[in-house]
Amino acid sequence: MSWSLQEVSKHNNTKSCWVIIDKKVYDVTDFLQEHPGGSSIILKYAGRDATGAYEPIHPSDALEKNLSPSQHLGPVDNDAVDSLEKAEASKKKTKDELRVEQFMKKRPPLNRIINLADMEDVAKQVLSYRAWAYYCSASDDEISLQENARAFQRFFFRARVMRPVSKCDPSTKVLGFETSLPIFVSGSALAKLGHPLGEVNITKGCAPSKIIQMVSSNASLSYAEIAAARSPSQTLFFQLYKHKNDAIALNRIREIEQLGYKAIFLTVDAVVPSNRERDVRSPWVLDDQETGIKVYNDGEGAADTDPGLGVAGALIVNDDRDMTWEKTIPWLRSVTKLPIVIKGIQCVEDAILAAEAKVDGILLSNHGGRQLEYSLPPLEVLYRLQIQQPHIFDKLEVYIDGGVRRGTDVVKAVCLGAKAVGLGRPFLYAQSAYGEVGVRKIISILEREIITTMRLMGVAKIDELTPDLVERVDWQPVARSAKL
Amino acid sequence: MSWSLQEVSKHNNTKSCWVIIDKKVYDVTDFLQEHPGGSSIILKYAGRDATGAYEPIHPSDALEKNLSPSQHLGPVDNDAVDSLEKAEASKKKTKDELRVEQFMKKRPPLNRIINLADMEDVAKQVLSYRAWAYYCSASDDEISLQENARAFQRFFFRARVMRPVSKCDPSTKVLGFETSLPIFVSGSALAKLGHPLGEVNITKGCAPSKIIQMVSSNASLSYAEIAAARSPSQTLFFQLYKHKNDAIALNRIREIEQLGYKAIFLTVDAVVPSNRERDVRSPWVLDDQETGIKVYNDGEGAADTDPGLGVAGALIVNDDRDMTWEKTIPWLRSVTKLPIVIKGIQCVEDAILAAEAKVDGILLSNHGGRQLEYSLPPLEVLYRLQIQQPHIFDKLEVYIDGGVRRGTDVVKAVCLGAKAVGLGRPFLYAQSAYGEVGVRKIISILEREIITTMRLMGVAKIDELTPDLVERVDWQPVARSAKL
Amino acid sequence: MSWSLQEVSKHNNTKSCWVIIDKKVYDVTDFLQEHPGGSSIILKYAGRDATGAYEPIHPSDALEKNLSPSQHLGPVDNDAVDSLEKAEASKKKTKDELRVEQFMKKRPPLNRIINLADMEDVAKQVLSYRAWAYYCSASDDEISLQENARAFQRFFFRARVMRPVSKCDPSTKVLGFETSLPIFVSGSALAKLGHPLGEVNITKGCAPSKIIQMVSSNASLSYAEIAAARSPSQTLFFQLYKHKNDAIALNRIREIEQLGYKAIFLTVDAVVPSNRERDVRSPWVLDDQETGIKVYNDGEGAADTDPGLGVAGALIVNDDRDMTWEKTIPWLRSVTKLPIVIKGIQCVEDAILAAEAKVDGILLSNHGGRQLEYSLPPLEVLYRLQIQQPHIFDKLEVYIDGGVRRGTDVVKAVCLGAKAVGLGRPFLYAQSAYGEVGVRKIISILEREIITTMRLMGVAKIDELTPDLVERVDWQPVARSAKL
Amino acid sequence: MSWSLQEVSKHNNTKSCWVIIDKKVYDVTDFLQEHPGGSSIILKYAGRDATGAYEPIHPSDALEKNLSPSQHLGPVDNDAVDSLEKAEASKKKTKDELRVEQFMKKRPPLNRIINLADMEDVAKQVLSYRAWAYYCSASDDEISLQENARAFQRFFFRARVMRPVSKCDPSTKVLGFETSLPIFVSGSALAKLGHPLGEVNITKGCAPSKIIQMVSSNASLSYAEIAAARSPSQTLFFQLYKHKNDAIALNRIREIEQLGYKAIFLTVDAVVPSNRERDVRSPWVLDDQETGIKVYNDGEGAADTDPGLGVAGALIVNDDRDMTWEKTIPWLRSVTKLPIVIKGIQCVEDAILAAEAKVDGILLSNHGGRQLEYSLPPLEVLYRLQIQQPHIFDKLEVYIDGGVRRGTDVVKAVCLGAKAVGLGRPFLYAQSAYGEVGVRKIISILEREIITTMRLMGVAKIDELTPDLVERVDWQPVARSAKL
Repeated sequence: MSWSLQEVSKHNNTKSCWVIIDKKVYDVTDFLQEHPGGSSIILKYAGRDATGAYEPIHPSDALEKNLSPSQHLGPVDNDAVDSLEKAEASKKKTKDELRVEQFMKKRPPLNRIINLADMEDVAKQVLSYRAWAYYCSASDDEISLQENARAFQRFFFRARVMRPVSKCDPSTKVLGFETSLPIFVSGSALAKLGHPLGEVNITKGCAPSKIIQMVSSNASLSYAEIAAARSPSQTLFFQLYKHKNDAIALNRIREIEQLGYKAIFLTVDAVVPSNRERDVRSPWVLDDQETGIKVYNDGEGAADTDPGLGVAGALIVNDDRDMTWEKTIPWLRSVTKLPIVIKGIQCVEDAILAAEAKVDGILLSNHGGRQLEYSLPPLEVLYRLQIQQPHIFDKLEVYIDGGVRRGTDVVKAVCLGAKAVGLGRPFLYAQSAYGEVGVRKIISILEREIITTMRLMGVAKIDELTPDLVERVDWQPVARSAKL
Repeated sequence: MSWSLQEVSKHNNTKSCWVIIDKKVYDVTDFLQEHPGGSSIILKYAGRDATGAYEPIHPSDALEKNLSPSQHLGPVDNDAVDSLEKAEASKKKTKDELRVEQFMKKRPPLNRIINLADMEDVAKQVLSYRAWAYYCSASDDEISLQENARAFQRFFFRARVMRPVSKCDPSTKVLGFETSLPIFVSGSALAKLGHPLGEVNITKGCAPSKIIQMVSSNASLSYAEIAAARSPSQTLFFQLYKHKNDAIALNRIREIEQLGYKAIFLTVDAVVPSNRERDVRSPWVLDDQETGIKVYNDGEGAADTDPGLGVAGALIVNDDRDMTWEKTIPWLRSVTKLPIVIKGIQCVEDAILAAEAKVDGILLSNHGGRQLEYSLPPLEVLYRLQIQQPHIFDKLEVYIDGGVRRGTDVVKAVCLGAKAVGLGRPFLYAQSAYGEVGVRKIISILEREIITTMRLMGVAKIDELTPDLVERVDWQPVARSAKL
Repeated sequence: MSWSLQEVSKHNNTKSCWVIIDKKVYDVTDFLQEHPGGSSIILKYAGRDATGAYEPIHPSDALEKNLSPSQHLGPVDNDAVDSLEKAEASKKKTKDELRVEQFMKKRPPLNRIINLADMEDVAKQVLSYRAWAYYCSASDDEISLQENARAFQRFFFRARVMRPVSKCDPSTKVLGFETSLPIFVSGSALAKLGHPLGEVNITKGCAPSKIIQMVSSNASLSYAEIAAARSPSQTLFFQLYKHKNDAIALNRIREIEQLGYKAIFLTVDAVVPSNRERDVRSPWVLDDQETGIKVYNDGEGAADTDPGLGVAGALIVNDDRDMTWEKTIPWLRSVTKLPIVIKGIQCVEDAILAAEAKVDGILLSNHGGRQLEYSLPPLEVLYRLQIQQPHIFDKLEVYIDGGVRRGTDVVKAVCLGAKAVGLGRPFLYAQSAYGEVGVRKIISILEREIITTMRLMGVAKIDELTPDLVERVDWQPVARSAKL
Repeated sequence: MSWSLQEVSKHNNTKSCWVIIDKKVYDVTDFLQEHPGGSSIILKYAGRDATGAYEPIHPSDALEKNLSPSQHLGPVDNDAVDSLEKAEASKKKTKDELRVEQFMKKRPPLNRIINLADMEDVAKQVLSYRAWAYYCSASDDEISLQENARAFQRFFFRARVMRPVSKCDPSTKVLGFETSLPIFVSGSALAKLGHPLGEVNITKGCAPSKIIQMVSSNASLSYAEIAAARSPSQTLFFQLYKHKNDAIALNRIREIEQLGYKAIFLTVDAVVPSNRERDVRSPWVLDDQETGIKVYNDGEGAADTDPGLGVAGALIVNDDRDMTWEKTIPWLRSVTKLPIVIKGIQCVEDAILAAEAKVDGILLSNHGGRQLEYSLPPLEVLYRLQIQQPHIFDKLEVYIDGGVRRGTDVVKAVCLGAKAVGLGRPFLYAQSAYGEVGVRKIISILEREIITTMRLMGVAKIDELTPDLVERVDWQPVARSAKL
């Protein structure tokens, strides 16, 4: 059976709500109240084609996981296919789409990308404004975002000379899994916003160098699609956003265990949505761009509708806000044998509690500055941990992420005790800008930078990178400028 | 009896000085010498209509309080009413008025205001230049103004994770009175400069959330009008500028007691006028805007008339400059049973003296940077008090104001021991920009920001906000930019 | 006897060198080698009228002091007077002169000058570029110049409240001489560059407020002219640049003693010329302004003539470069009974030596940043002296100068132990901008600022300004902006 | 025998590769694999004239040293000479060449150069973009480059007064060799990029003042040519880049010993190429300048060719990456009697090891910020050495380089224990801008600045410059601006 557009259009309200996605019809009436992003965004497309809004932010198995078979109503009819294709073809491009189209004609060849800032520059122009705003946004005034990076600048090297470095090996292990460099892909959501192939670009780009990818619960591809894209020897970790319903959380864990994910990074720094203003403002920016400055003239009684949670907020609305050391870790240990890492430790005291809870590792992170504004930069937390509680590093593995953009950044963190260093946005930017080869490119840049830094410090192996090789200075160096 | 304009115009000098205010005639001859703002500003309107200059900066009961019944001469006649209305109608708008008029057509809808900086941006454009200059001005080079805000940036959070935060309650008490958030409206003068309804916008805007409003002695509405606008359960405090004549000061106290104000905040940091240059310059700015750059050609013997005290200076010219701990506090205790808070403590030593004087609270404040330039930022004083004299917090309640613009600012101050945090300019800006709903808007923004911050710190109740959750860092973070 | 231009023009070389100054003829042949500014600048005018170059930088008694009666050859003849006047009248104005002329038409009225930065702004436009460059220039990259001022920003007030301040007296004594404010005019050369009446503008401007003027050895008026301009009760100090020849130095001391100068400030921080690049470049700037960018095309063998010492260097070329504590102070004590102050102390150790040498005072100064680049800011030296050697303040009077532009600056220095605070450039700028009334203006501004600051600190008398009222902070506040 | 262009053009591939340099023909087929810069750059000119690319970066003896006699094929024929000359004459100038040509017409006369920043300004405009990029480039974001200079700003003088300074002697000895100032020319490569006469400009410019020149292994003139240009009493040092093959390294040492070089500075901070992005990007900048912005349209599979090592990387590709204290220093001692200095010490620990290895001196240096990014500024290392290990200064001579641009910089380093201070880029810039006289010019500027600084500090001899005369301050002064 197939459906005419006319028939579908009748189901345009809360009592009966149908939507068309990729030329198939779905009855989402009962799902309206369960949708994490709220019902109003669905109702905006009730009785109509919702493909354009749906696809970039939902994994392919979302309809299957969330709707019962009876809610899958089947395809639209041939006339409808024609109509939808014509509508698509005749759709006027927005100014933002035209901007991207123009830029793609002069996108620089890949060999001109020589550092991660270059890659970010290309990504900024390749990305839709909405995607850019989602990726780069951080909390409030984006102070923690910037301070994460500035922290690295306060650590200088005390380089050693006259040491043999012709052979230099930057490989190491994370939770026992090999990696050619002390870096990994830190979990981040919605890669499809930046590139139609999404997270798989990262998976494939990491394969040759055995860089470990941590896949987010909120990936825009299904966990299975990502797992399927990996090479035989490639390691994937899973970033768990724990559902408040333990049973649903357990389903997710079982799924990724079966898919062969090798560790669970439990996210603890994002229990509630945060305030990412660039993200909240992005629809207004686009709207004003299309229509010019409007005359509002709304008077003082102007309707004050809530701007909503933004994409990021919607993703975590059902997560567990009451996790505790006493309850959550033992439960997790009881249901899985995978190594457990706590992602989002932000002070020394909680690092101690994590060690007492006998988890396998901690990721010092403030979620890339996207959650608690004025959370200490992870590198500063790492430094305090190294100074105040050096024995912790014997009890569990310590990682950091946030603000890492250069090989020197990676080496500093490893000197201060980090087993490995996560990068999030740089991988999103790389796959957005050039897809899989973009990912390979930034790995090769980081490899060159890390090896060069190690050699110029007189170091030939990762475990020779020790705290005495760095010094925290008492001034703030000049800011990095994007281009020289 | 009613008066012709011709008759009124004869009384245009110090010997007989009449003015028309709101179509009524007043004999202010004897009052000239008593006017806090000096006689010359009145004489400028002698024999003429003074309504435009008078209204925005005087409460409605000022004429009643200051002139005897015999000085109220009665209304102008019908011809005068016609003339005054015609004059009003035909008055050419100034460039500044036209600027505001233009902006009002494109004032953004309220739902696009997502932080207090947005609100300030709208206010800056809605306000007459004169009002803007009065509100935003601070002393000398406005260093303390800026440093008040920058101080918050040097304090970072040591956030805790794995703590239950699904329930989060930011309510607290101030002097025993309930408030839904640990904030209050700090006293500020002349709300009518920004909006015709004045302070009442704030009163009504605070009602739903039970935010306590501190009403200034120099409010532009009468204390009674403000009290009348409050909801039954709403708490008002009174910011006392003590007159040098104890009897007059006592009258004011009796008035606000009878009106049901619940506490007295005695202002001690503004005993003399300060140097607010933006305020002093504002008439010149407006004058030059109208006339273009002039050729002065005045030679070296140019008349050097005193630019005067400005509005702020005039308001406090009769205040008590010789208050002491020994004399003033016992006197105040002897005349009222209301709780007494000292507003304007600027160092640890005086906090100790206040505790010894057994007052109920202290407000660490440098008057929003508007009085002593290079007074330490209140947050820095709070930090020193917490480090050096933690026991003080058991003896009285401690508040701060100055530079607070984000929920994170509020939470930091509460962590360091503040019972609540005052905001002044943000409420003036909000009521100027959108009236009562503007006030409600910034309270809802702050509520969201405070709750989000608490939850992301692992905190569910106000009394869990403790000094160990913040750390003063040894670098200055990047400046906040108004818009991202 | 009188001289024709033709006759004078024959004496245009080193063998016979005549010049015309103010229509009189002088034989300077023998003086060529003695001229502190070198012979070449005189030879440029040999046989010609030199008035324009001579007058602004020489006191009126310079010809009398330096040339014997026989070298005063008498007036030019009537034809010559006509010719010189015609030449003067027909002289084309330079672009720089036209710029000043234009500005004078829109110079703001004096009552719009509300702080010292305003005054400097006017001065910058009133002054010839050459004078501006001479006044504002400092050594090398002008770092010490700027750091002198920035140092004040690192000191905040710990203001006290509840203290009687209705009576507030900022008067004090310097070396026993009364002054209405704890400030004085620090010595600076060549006031005539900025205003035809020169140093006397300062003398007369200081008279009403009894501010003490320190007169430089290198004043552009004679010491007698300045002394003559003072009011009966007015105090003048003398800034001595000691000639390398003790006998010549003694003559100078005897002269100022007889003129009633009350103290000697011996300059010790300017024994050799320094590198003031803005001053050195000023003739090139003016030259390029007149002629546009030139094609030089000089090749690599270009003549590399020495740019010379500049005005400042010439003034001190004969000064004593070998002064010592052991020799110079005892000699000075032996020849005069006037109080002796060492001007230019730059570290704590030399403050101690000065106390041991039993001088009456020291002026902590780095010559306004015009001598040794990277000399510590005087306020920082004062702070170190107060912390490390507080007893020194009992042994001699301590003053500072450099970077003082606000009443708060003065009060901070007095809190830290300074008996008084010198200002140099601000007085030059004030007299350049408006003459005598400009000087009065900045004194009245400083008086208002000092009194306001004292009162808002809870202080009524100068000796209540103590070190506990200021705190050196560990961050650098935002820079002052000239205008708000 | 002579060759036609036609004949030469046949040898245009890896099997037979001939090139023309300065009208002579060379068979470089066998050399292709040995060329430090790789074969592809040679193949680009295979069968053609390579003079333009070859000359500026190779010393005159490079062909002789690297090719056997049989590979020197002899001159081109007369027709070829004509053709090459015509081609040269008709070659269209690039935009970059035209820019330089234009600037040369208005190059300022030498007497207008009054500090080293002036000289750098001229150099920037005289130099081809490629040369400028090579000279000024540094690693990664050029942070160490900038921090090297900023470090000097954190040290202020504690100047002494009342000390005899009329006689002031800034001369000293380095490794026993006299120098008129405590500075030397630090080794740097490729002076011919900036000026056709190359390093010899520096040699001749240093002769009058006996400033010692350290000649780089990678000089663009032969060591013999430079030695030949020196005056009889002039001292040259040699900066050794040690070849990984000891025998080849020894040949180089023997050569410079015989030429009379007086010391060996063994480079230890540049064992591998670093990441100098400005250098890597320079061909793209020039290419884009010529052709405008291109449409690349290369798709995601864009060829990602390696940008290569750049000039700097090629120069050191065969150097010894496995030097050690145990092996390399004893070997060097065993083969030469020349004094040995380690160039590139970057921390206190290695300074101690150097003393234990009994070398004659150490040069604290991070290679002008061109090797390890975030290496501590040499001045900070010197300061730590002075504070932590003052006895080291008795065991060997300590020098620094990096960021020195002012006489004050030199004096600060000498106060902190440096025997002398090296400057690299300033000499390259001076010789590029004006040749030999440019070099003389900056030496005379530094002489004036050093003497003035010493005198204003109360110091008459180099050994009176002691650590107590400087103070490290706890704030960062304002940045130097290039021009006032």
